[in-house]
Parts: sequence; structure tokens; C-alpha cells
Amino acid sequence: MKLIYLVSGPMGRSPEGKAELARRREYLQRHAAPGVHVDITDIPAGPGSIESMYEEYLSIPETVQRAHELQAEGWDGILLGCYGDPGLGALREIVDIPVVGAGQATALMASAVGRRYSVITVTDSVIGPMEEQMRTTGGGEKLASVRAVNIPVLDLHKDREAAIEVTIEEGRKAIEEDRADTLIVGCMSMGFLEIPEACQAELGVPFLNPARVQLKFLEAMLGSGISHSKRAYMTPPKIASGLAASPADLLHRKN
Amino acid sequence: MKLIYLVSGPMGRSPEGKAELARRREYLQRHAAPGVHVDITDIPAGPGSIESMYEEYLSIPETVQRAHELQAEGWDGILLGCYGDPGLGALREIVDIPVVGAGQATALMASAVGRRYSVITVTDSVIGPMEEQMRTTGGGEKLASVRAVNIPVLDLHKDREAAIEVTIEEGRKAIEEDRADTLIVGCMSMGFLEIPEACQAELGVPFLNPARVQLKFLEAMLGSGISHSKRAYMTPPKIASGLAASPADLLHRKN
Amino acid sequence: MKLIYLVSGPMGRSPEGKAELARRREYLQRHAAPGVHVDITDIPAGPGSIESMYEEYLSIPETVQRAHELQAEGWDGILLGCYGDPGLGALREIVDIPVVGAGQATALMASAVGRRYSVITVTDSVIGPMEEQMRTTGGGEKLASVRAVNIPVLDLHKDREAAIEVTIEEGRKAIEEDRADTLIVGCMSMGFLEIPEACQAELGVPFLNPARVQLKFLEAMLGSGISHSKRAYMTPPKIASGLAASPADLLHRKN
Amino acid sequence: MKLIYLVSGPMGRSPEGKAELARRREYLQRHAAPGVHVDITDIPAGPGSIESMYEEYLSIPETVQRAHELQAEGWDGILLGCYGDPGLGALREIVDIPVVGAGQATALMASAVGRRYSVITVTDSVIGPMEEQMRTTGGGEKLASVRAVNIPVLDLHKDREAAIEVTIEEGRKAIEEDRADTLIVGCMSMGFLEIPEACQAELGVPFLNPARVQLKFLEAMLGSGISHSKRAYMTPPKIASGLAASPADLLHRKN
Amino acid sequence: MKLIYLVSGPMGRSPEGKAELARRREYLQRHAAPGVHVDITDIPAGPGSIESMYEEYLSIPETVQRAHELQAEGWDGILLGCYGDPGLGALREIVDIPVVGAGQATALMASAVGRRYSVITVTDSVIGPMEEQMRTTGGGEKLASVRAVNIPVLDLHKDREAAIEVTIEEGRKAIEEDRADTLIVGCMSMGFLEIPEACQAELGVPFLNPARVQLKFLEAMLGSGISHSKRAYMTPPKIASGLAASPADLLHRKN
Amino acid sequence: MKLIYLVSGPMGRSPEGKAELARRREYLQRHAAPGVHVDITDIPAGPGSIESMYEEYLSIPETVQRAHELQAEGWDGILLGCYGDPGLGALREIVDIPVVGAGQATALMASAVGRRYSVITVTDSVIGPMEEQMRTTGGGEKLASVRAVNIPVLDLHKDREAAIEVTIEEGRKAIEEDRADTLIVGCMSMGFLEIPEACQAELGVPFLNPARVQLKFLEAMLGSGISHSKRAYMTPPKIASGLAASPADLLHRKN
Repeated sequence: MKLIYLVSGPMGRSPEGKAELARRREYLQRHAAPGVHVDITDIPAGPGSIESMYEEYLSIPETVQRAHELQAEGWDGILLGCYGDPGLGALREIVDIPVVGAGQATALMASAVGRRYSVITVTDSVIGPMEEQMRTTGGGEKLASVRAVNIPVLDLHKDREAAIEVTIEEGRKAIEEDRADTLIVGCMSMGFLEIPEACQAELGVPFLNPARVQLKFLEAMLGSGISHSKRAYMTPPKIASGLAASPADLLHRKN
Repeated sequence: MKLIYLVSGPMGRSPEGKAELARRREYLQRHAAPGVHVDITDIPAGPGSIESMYEEYLSIPETVQRAHELQAEGWDGILLGCYGDPGLGALREIVDIPVVGAGQATALMASAVGRRYSVITVTDSVIGPMEEQMRTTGGGEKLASVRAVNIPVLDLHKDREAAIEVTIEEGRKAIEEDRADTLIVGCMSMGFLEIPEACQAELGVPFLNPARVQLKFLEAMLGSGISHSKRAYMTPPKIASGLAASPADLLHRKN
Repeated sequence: MKLIYLVSGPMGRSPEGKAELARRREYLQRHAAPGVHVDITDIPAGPGSIESMYEEYLSIPETVQRAHELQAEGWDGILLGCYGDPGLGALREIVDIPVVGAGQATALMASAVGRRYSVITVTDSVIGPMEEQMRTTGGGEKLASVRAVNIPVLDLHKDREAAIEVTIEEGRKAIEEDRADTLIVGCMSMGFLEIPEACQAELGVPFLNPARVQLKFLEAMLGSGISHSKRAYMTPPKIASGLAASPADLLHRKN
Repeated sequence: MKLIYLVSGPMGRSPEGKAELARRREYLQRHAAPGVHVDITDIPAGPGSIESMYEEYLSIPETVQRAHELQAEGWDGILLGCYGDPGLGALREIVDIPVVGAGQATALMASAVGRRYSVITVTDSVIGPMEEQMRTTGGGEKLASVRAVNIPVLDLHKDREAAIEVTIEEGRKAIEEDRADTLIVGCMSMGFLEIPEACQAELGVPFLNPARVQLKFLEAMLGSGISHSKRAYMTPPKIASGLAASPADLLHRKN
Repeated sequence: MKLIYLVSGPMGRSPEGKAELARRREYLQRHAAPGVHVDITDIPAGPGSIESMYEEYLSIPETVQRAHELQAEGWDGILLGCYGDPGLGALREIVDIPVVGAGQATALMASAVGRRYSVITVTDSVIGPMEEQMRTTGGGEKLASVRAVNIPVLDLHKDREAAIEVTIEEGRKAIEEDRADTLIVGCMSMGFLEIPEACQAELGVPFLNPARVQLKFLEAMLGSGISHSKRAYMTPPKIASGLAASPADLLHRKN
Repeated sequence: MKLIYLVSGPMGRSPEGKAELARRREYLQRHAAPGVHVDITDIPAGPGSIESMYEEYLSIPETVQRAHELQAEGWDGILLGCYGDPGLGALREIVDIPVVGAGQATALMASAVGRRYSVITVTDSVIGPMEEQMRTTGGGEKLASVRAVNIPVLDLHKDREAAIEVTIEEGRKAIEEDRADTLIVGCMSMGFLEIPEACQAELGVPFLNPARVQLKFLEAMLGSGISHSKRAYMTPPKIASGLAASPADLLHRKN
């Protein structure tokens, strides 16, 4: 089984980014089931990090295009590498192989292990969108709250200890004030920094790492012999009817 | 008061499209309040029409970019010209002037005139996304159903009479089977073809034209002295902190 | 276009009330679109102010009767002048011209500009009824909270500065504790005292004045060519069948 | 224990009405628990029957006034005699003794005996308002549907057999199409004609008669030693503060 | 009318338990309507008290078996004696006579007297299950919160004054922080210790005692001439088809 | 990794049952990830099959007891082998190792692959309970309907072709009438007969087999390094405080 993790941004264009891609690939491979090969890729252009709806949308066209190529390359499933699940519905319209969104998969897994979960994310600017996302993704019934550490994504790795400290603080508020019994980090960078693993003992509740949960969820989906429903995520009519030969054809560029 | 209608696609790149833009501008100006000037614009590249989530997303980056320019040009408010409200949240993150989404405004106006409304849209492929949209936009409580005429957007103008006939048929089902007391056409092309106006007498319930409702809703918002809440639609942190000078800076292109 | 604002109480029976009616008429006319004429009227008998469900109900029979007369007089639309929308459904059963409730229109407009809104109203006694109203009116999905300044309606004008101060205080709590990003004053007297306008800058979020929003919403409804659905607000069967000649006939008085 | 059934209309002003009052009193007394005395009263003026929101509202001022008198007369509890519960909140604001609404009590009792209940009411004109009522009254979670026999209230007694026949027909649709497992007649006249009792065997599900259920619910409330919460249904501030001496004082009549 | 209160545990196997059974029977008989005879019984084996879902489930098989016998003995209705309503649905599948659950009946009665109710229960361990119970039982719309005194059930009687003190404390928080206007004790032992009665005056809101409310609710159901819907709580197919002669036959014991 | 599938009934007491256990074990092992060993066990006494809430409850005490033993035996996770998830909360109160319920896991997986799912189960008698289950389990937002083939569990294997035929019929109705885009069989026997696999091609939507999905979900949970939250599923206080040494101690048997 060959899975591909698709970063919704051009992470690999700098040497540091390339290293980070490698580091993430290694994390995923380490947690993969025996016989599962995981690789990682990114998109040629897009936002440096995602802290707004605007940046989410900026990432989508290239991500869908890349997903289309990945299907052609023969991968068995795609891990959409952003907690906000940007463009998840569009990817599923375009490809038939399973695409798992980190946010959706983790919210559903959290719904399976507790009664009320909270998401600890990066900045206040995504709290509103993320509440909306959790509610439309199927995990809304058990959502207790979304809270932010208010550290920009690109600064997280500069002081991991500080990020852990604030995460513990917000996690504690989620447990005590919002009555959460389960936690999630709502940001892949927080996930790949293994912040949940670092906080779980201190907080005493399951703390889900979307990087890991998402991978296992995709393995579970493939292992169950299913993919997303094409009746729910219909192929765009212009493609279904043959009017467009490929997704790229749907973008008419001005002369 | 100067308002601008922003088409989420490159409509003006063909002579027929240019004519259609002019025709739409005229419709809007005709329905504008005295003293309100309405113009129309489009985006340089994007989908030919929107019948899937993928095409919605394809339209957003250029639409946001264009909205940013329009604010700089001094327009008082923006009409986002697609019933699916693609990127509405992102536009509001980027500009301060009011941006009204056709879908949101019409769903809320329908909520004000009846107890249960149905949307008659173009193709089955958008029913799922549109139900999701109506539910997150604030109009979910009164949504009875979304139904489709299953005529591609680009074919609507070829046989307006056929479109009217199927709309009446689906509208009747919405009233009788789904107990709707109010109707909306969920597609701007259906709106600018004045299909609701053509069907209302036959169906005997208010039939909202989003092209017209959206305009009046924006006039109402401006007349109320308010715009969208920047606490709800926060400026992207990288812009707020000065890290990026403009929205375009958020898109790092690979060398 | 001729609109009439209908006060749900006998405001004009004292000289001060007459002056207040004139002042309100002036406020409305000042905010009306060009070409829109707004007048104001009241009812011959009813409660001095509305701070309970009982007082709401006391106002309704005369208000409906007056609306019926106003339609006969040829007005184009009616502004029901109380935030609680007392009898809104009944007015719509009786008249065909658009009737806009201040509470409903403002809740829906708030739903269009933010993600969570709070209402700051007069007394604790209306918090429960107002939560119920917001939830049945179509604006329930985005309601964050209803809070009260606990100043009786008839005392508001005696010390406008005090009212502003407490409104800012409660507005701040709504933003910080209830996470509102948009505010409304839930009382027409607070509206005509222009309390929202006085507080908006300090609070930094859109603060909707129902007196103004309601007017613009009615203009928008008329400009959209629609009125309320008679399938939702059916004519009372005794009138529809000719058993009663007028609404007044439905009230059988004992000999 | 002395209970009073308060008809929301001037039923007793005709000889036939007087007889009907006596007949209803007898029905209630027959079903009362040992030691419970039930009497019946009406209001001096009001609608002949209630088939619209307008007629509901017409009945309220006199009903509240009468409830206030009844409390002074020493009754232990009030049965509000209309399925629509017109003015229930207002009565509770004004009196301290328990007031039970037929609609609310029966919806809650239906919620206790089944998983999904339907209401069979008189005319299409009250379906919308009744759905709204069931949802705000606490019984919304288990509401399957509201259906109408479309026989005017005042004609029900002319052909009881016809009413029974249509009720069985609509009841069957509720069971088969809406999956109801429990039924209610949503009209007191249908109740006092003992239509549920006549249909129950045929339909094979519990069929609740609000006339009877309401009485037993009030006995249960009194037997539980509780009344409605005055924190939920606050005394109008003008009365609480002594500004008004009685509810009637809240109605300022024009000179 | 002969009612039987069925304790979901083997209370009567110790002398103290026997005395407590007698005391509870006396409380119920004291509150019964004239002509109503109430007796009490327990089950031969089961948990000593119920403070977890596990203990709830432990009590069910014997409780259903006992209910089946009680129906055969000719009782008119059964009071299921645990606030968590353990096995309520199963009892109703097996017997035709009305079975009233303390939790369901009290939540519905609370929904009839206020707008928001809170439950004060014994231990944190049942807060989650009880929220779930209140939401599926029909009373979810008006639930404000569930709070715990954190005194084990079996210790409650050792220091009734302490229990009252903490109940008042938690009740006050429910009113002030969770905006409850109505309270319930979510534990039969707290009920039979008459803790609600002891706290009501201090707290100033209706405080429902499930021991009493449940009894009156069953009287109301019987007085209404109805029982639970067998279409909602279907007889197990094996019994309906004659495959099993009695409920006990459904339990195949290993040789 | 060693997983154990725990049948909620005494399947192994007959030779046919023993063979069926072996067959199920083989199915699970065949679908397990490399390195995962799956075994199967049952309970010494319990219902022959589960077609009612009563039979669910009958199975729980022994199932919890068995789970407690299985944890002691060193298994890594437990598959609760009944779609109704009987006693899932109780098992989680008693053990720390992950326990996955077939119903919950499959409903959540269905929520991840579509927008609306339907469950095709065995008999009408479980439709109501299963709707309740789906709604409290976290998967309620996307539930379209529950439908039944009305074949008793124990007859399913007698005519697999008939079962497939009716499943296809009901599945088609779910898709066309209830607008489901994803299906589940709500019965483990239907799962182990591989009915979903047999119907999927014909129906054209993902058809989830809970036997397989549940296994993969547990692998995913273990692979994510998490178990259920003990703050959500608290250890029963009597055990936590040392009052009881083991779960069995909570059942006081009468002398």
C-alpha cells in the first residue's frame, strides 16, 4: 500500500523546507502499518502557512491539480496535509482514490474516544472557520470548543517549549472551563512537532495528533475497502460529460 | 453610492460574454435605488461556470485579488456574483467594505418572508455543497430542500422556456412534497434570465431572484451604516502584523 | 415608495409622546433611500412600553387592526415598531403588503455580517422571550447571547449617558465572555436614542440599530419585488371563506 | 383541590355555547382525580374559534385578565383551554398558581410515551404556527409532523363521524409516511368530541386527548408541589416595582 | 388504582434496606392521589447503588424480569426507581402497562414549568451519561446543565445537612452561571431524603423531586387513559412470533 | 498487536455456533493488518441474537465481565461484536484498553466518506433504538435513515440470496427516497455474511461492513496511540475508591 502526504503549500522550495518535508515523511513512515509505504509531496506554489480562510483558498487549485497527478501516478490514497481540510470536497470530486482530511478524520476519531473534544489551534483568526469546519465535517455533535495558542505557524518550531507550555495552559482551560474530555491540536505543524505527545501525560486526557490519526484513518479506510462516495462528491459535470478532458481544463485563462 | 458586481469567472473574455456583462449591469442598475450607481467586473482567469466545489475554489484566488483592487479603487461595496458565495469569508478577511454573497443574502431574505424555503439550482452536483452552504450561512433553520433542474449553466440561455418549465416543475414539488412556502433560484444565470419573475405567478409563492435580492441587501447593509465584523472575519495575521504587504504577498511562488 | 412605521403602543397621546413620534419619524426619514417617504403612527390603546410577554400581547389586537387600515390607506409597507415583533405573524395573515419586524430583520442582518451576535436589551424579564424569538425567527443559528442593561424602557431617555455606559459594559461582556462579534440593541427606544452609534467605536464590532436596519430591510424587500409568503402566513380561514368581512369581525363581543 | 378551565373565547354568550361549556365541564369533572373539583369559565369577548395566529392574539388580553381574577378567587390552578397555548407565557407572568397549556402538556406527555408523535389539527392555517409552538414548548425533539383535517372548528360538531373518518385517514398517513408512533389531536373541540378515543383502536397507537391530558398534567404539577418558575416567567417590571397596581393598569387607554 | 415502585437494586436484603423501602413506600403513599395505592418492591440481585453506566446495566435484566412478574400480578403501572431510567425501553418492550422513568418524567415536567433546567446529581461519573439521557428522553431542548455534589449515594443519608448544603451551592451555580430557572435532583436517594423540598425556599426556583414527580406523572398517564406506544417500544420479535414464551426465554444459558 | 472480538452472546455453545465463531475469526484475521493477530470469544450466557433493547441489555453484564478478564489476559484492544454497541460505555468504564463499538465506528467512518448515510438493519424493532444510538454516538449529523429488511437475525444465513435481494431493495430506497450516498449494514450477521460486499456494485455507493470497518477502526485507534477518555468514561466510584475490588463486586447478590 502506497500513501502520499500532500502538503498544501510550497514547503519544499527552501532547504529548510526540504528538510522539514523529510522529517515529516519519516514521522509518517514510522507510524505506518507494516507494508505501508508513505511518501510526501508539496505543491509548486501556495501560501507559506495557513492562518486564514484566504490562505486556505490560495492553496486549493494547485493542491487539486497535484492530487489529480498523484492518482495518475498510482498512489493508493492521499493524506491532505492541513488541519483545515482546504478543498477536501474538490479533491474528492476530482479523484476516486481515498482522500482523508486531517481535520475531519481527527474530529471523528475524537468523537469515538470521548464525549466532548476541544481543538487547540494556532491563531484566533482560524477559530471561527474551524468551528464551522468541525460542524460541517460530521464531528459537530461532540465539539466543546476551539482555542488558540496565538503563536504564528512559522514561529512554532522556534520555541517548541513555549508552544508546549501554552498548549498545556489552553488544554487545561478546555478541560476545566469547556468540559472537554479529549483534545486535538488543530495544526499540522503542532502535530509534527509532537506537541500532543508532549502534553498528554500532563493533561490526563487523550490528546490526538492529526498527523498520526489521519494516517491511521486512511489505512482504516483502505483496509475497509471503501473510498469516498462519488454520489456525495460528484465529478464536475463538465468532466463527467466529456466537455473537459481534465481538471485543468476547467480553468479558462484569459488570452 | 457606487457598487460593483464581481463575477467569479472570466466572463468578459469573449464578445458574447462582454454583452452578457453589459446586460447584467443593466439589470442591476435598473433595480438599484436612486442615487446608486452599479457597475460590473470579472476576473482575468477562472472557471467558465460553477457547477462543482472544484470550480468554486478555482475562482477564489483571482476574485479575492480583484476585490482587493476594487476596494483600492474606492467602491462602496461588492456584490460577490455567484450563488455559492465562493470565498466570501476570504474576501471579508481582505477588504473592509461590505461584501454581500448572493447565497447568504437571499437565504436570509427568504428566512424573513416565509417559514420554509427551497432552492432550485442547476445540477445535482451542487445540491450537497449548497445544503452545507445554506446551513453554515445562517439560513439553515428554514431550509426545506435544494432541488436541481439539471441543465448545465452554460446551456440555460439557449432555451429559456425549457428552463422555466423545469423550474416550475421542481418548484411545485418543493411546495407540495417538501412543504416550501418560499423559493429561490440557486444560480445567478437563472437569476439574470429572470426565471423567478417568470415563474412566480404560476407557483403562487414568493420566488426570490438572488441577483436582485443581493443588490438590495447590500444597499440595506450600507444604508444601515455597517459592514461585516472584522472580529468574525479577521485580517490574516501575516497582513495584520505587517509581514505581508498585500494579499498577493501571501502566495509564495516557487522559483 | 411610502412606508409607515407603526408603534405598538399609544405613544402619541401625550405631548411628549407626540414629540417623540416626530423625532422618530425624522430619524427614519433621514435614513430612508431617496424617493422613500416614511411616516409614523401609533395605536389608540396599548401598553406604555413593552417589558414582558404580557405587554407584547396587549399591543397586538390594536396593532393588527391599525395595519389593516394602513393597507387600505395605500401604504407600500409596514415597519412593526417593537424589537419583540409582537404579532408579526398575525399582521402578515391580515395584510398582503410587506411587514417587517425589527427583531427578525436585525437578527438576519446580524447573521449576514458576523458569525455570532448578541442582543443587548432592556430588562431581564425579556431575555427568555427574546431568546425564543431569535430562535424561531430564523436567526437562531448565530445567536451568542441576550443580555440586559436593566434600565426600564421609560427611563432610558432620562439618562442617555448612563444607558450608553451600561450598554458598553454589557457589550464588552458579550464580546469577551460570550464571544460575540456583532451586537444589536434589542429595544427600539435604545435604537432611536442612537445608542448603537454611540457605542460602536468603543466596542469595535458592528453594532446594529434595529430602527435603521429594519427600515433598510423593508426597502430591500420592496426593492426585491417580494412580500411575505401567504402560504406561510395564511389568511384566517373565516376571512378567506367570506365568513368574516374584516379582521375586526373575528372578535365577537359579548352583549 | 379546585381547578378552573379557562376557555379562550366567549363561548358562553349563546345558549348553545352555555350548553357546550356545561358539557365540557362535565367531561373534565368525570376525568378528575377524586377530591378534585373542576369548573369552567370563558372570557367576555374574543374570537369565536381559533384558526390563525391573529385569533390567538385576539383572545389573550381578556384571558390574562380573567386568569388574574381567577387567582384572586382562590382557584388552585388554571387550564388554558386552547391547544395553541395562546398567551401561556403572559398568564404565567401575571399569576403564581400553576397554568397548564394544553399544547405544551400534551406534547410533553407524548414525548413520554413514544419516540415520534404527530399532531392532527383542524386547518392548514395553523400547521406552521403549531410546528413553531411544539418546537419552543419543549416537545420539539420528538415531533414527527403536524397534519390538518381541514374542517373549520365551528363545523366539527355538525358531523362528528366525518371528522373521525378524516382524522383516521390523516392519522394513518402520520404513522405510515411520517413514522409517528403516537398521535395528538391539536384542537380542544376535537378533544371534547372525544375523537381520539374514537380513533385509537383503529389506529393502534396511543392517541392523546389534550382535554384529558392537560387536566391530569395540572393535577400532576400540583401534586408535585410545584408551579411554573417565576425566574423563567418574570412578573412584568412595572408590576414588580409597584408602578402598576394590576395587570389592567398596563393598558393605557387613550383619552 | 394500584401502582408499584420498582427499586433497581436489591435494597431489601438488609434490615436497614428493608426499613428504607418502607420509608420510601410511605413517602409515595403520602403523595399519592386519593384512591391510589402504592407499594414498593426491589430486585433479588443487582448493584448496591448506581453511580456508573455499568451499575445501570447490571440492574436491568432482573428489573425487566421483575416488571414482567408485576404485570402478571395485576399492577396498573410501574415506577422505575432510578433517575437514570436504566432499561426503560426494555421494560416497555416487555410490558404493556405504563412504565414511567423518573428521569424522563421529571425532565419533561421541568420542561413544562421553566425555560432552562439543571440537574443536580451525585457524582461526576454520571454527568456525561445523564446529559446523554436528558437529550434522548425528550427533555434536551431545555437542559441547561448537569452538576454533581460528589457525595456517594450510599453516604447521602449519613449527613443529610451536608448534602443539602452542597446542593444549595451547586443549585446556586446552576442558576447564576448556567442560567437555570428550574432544578431537579438527579438521584432517587436525594429525592427520598427530601432534599429538593429543603432547598427550594433558599434557591427561589421550582426544585423538582423525581420521587414525587414520577408518581404524579404515572397517575397522569393512567388518568389520560394511555400507555407507552408499542409501535415505539416493540415487543421483541422472538416473543411476538411465539419463538420465546417469556422474556426469560430470551436468555440462553450455556450448559 | 493482539485484538479480541467479543461476541455479545453465547454463540459458541452449539457446534454450529462454534463453527460460526471460527468463520468470523477467519474473516477478521484475513482483513487484519500485517502483524495484527485477531481472536474471537463469546460470553457464557446471553441472548441468542439481539433484536430488541431488552436483548441488548441481557448481553451486557456478562460482556463487561468478559472484557474485564480480557484486559487481564493482556489483549491490546477489544472489538465489541454487536452493531447496537450494547454496554459500550460500561466496558469503557471498566477497562483501559481501547474498546471499539461496531455501530459507533462504522457511523463515524460513514460520516468521513459521504454526506448522508443510511443503515440497513434486520427488524423494525431496532429502528427506533438505532436512530437513538446513531444520534448519541457522534454520527447523528449525517444520518439519513435507518431501514429494516425484516428478516430475523437467526434466519439470515438460511437464505443469503434473499437477504441480499431485500438489502438491495431497501438500499435503493435509502438512496432514492432518503437521499443517502453511503450505506451501512446495521447487523454483524449481515456483515459476516459479506452482504455489503455483495450489494455494493449493484448500488453504486460505498457500502460499509461493520465487521471490517470496526477492526480497521480499532487498528487506527491503537496506531494513533490513544484509547477512550477516562474523563468521559469514568471508573465507577466504588472501584476508584477501592470500595469494590473488581467489577463483579458491584453486583450484590441476595443471600
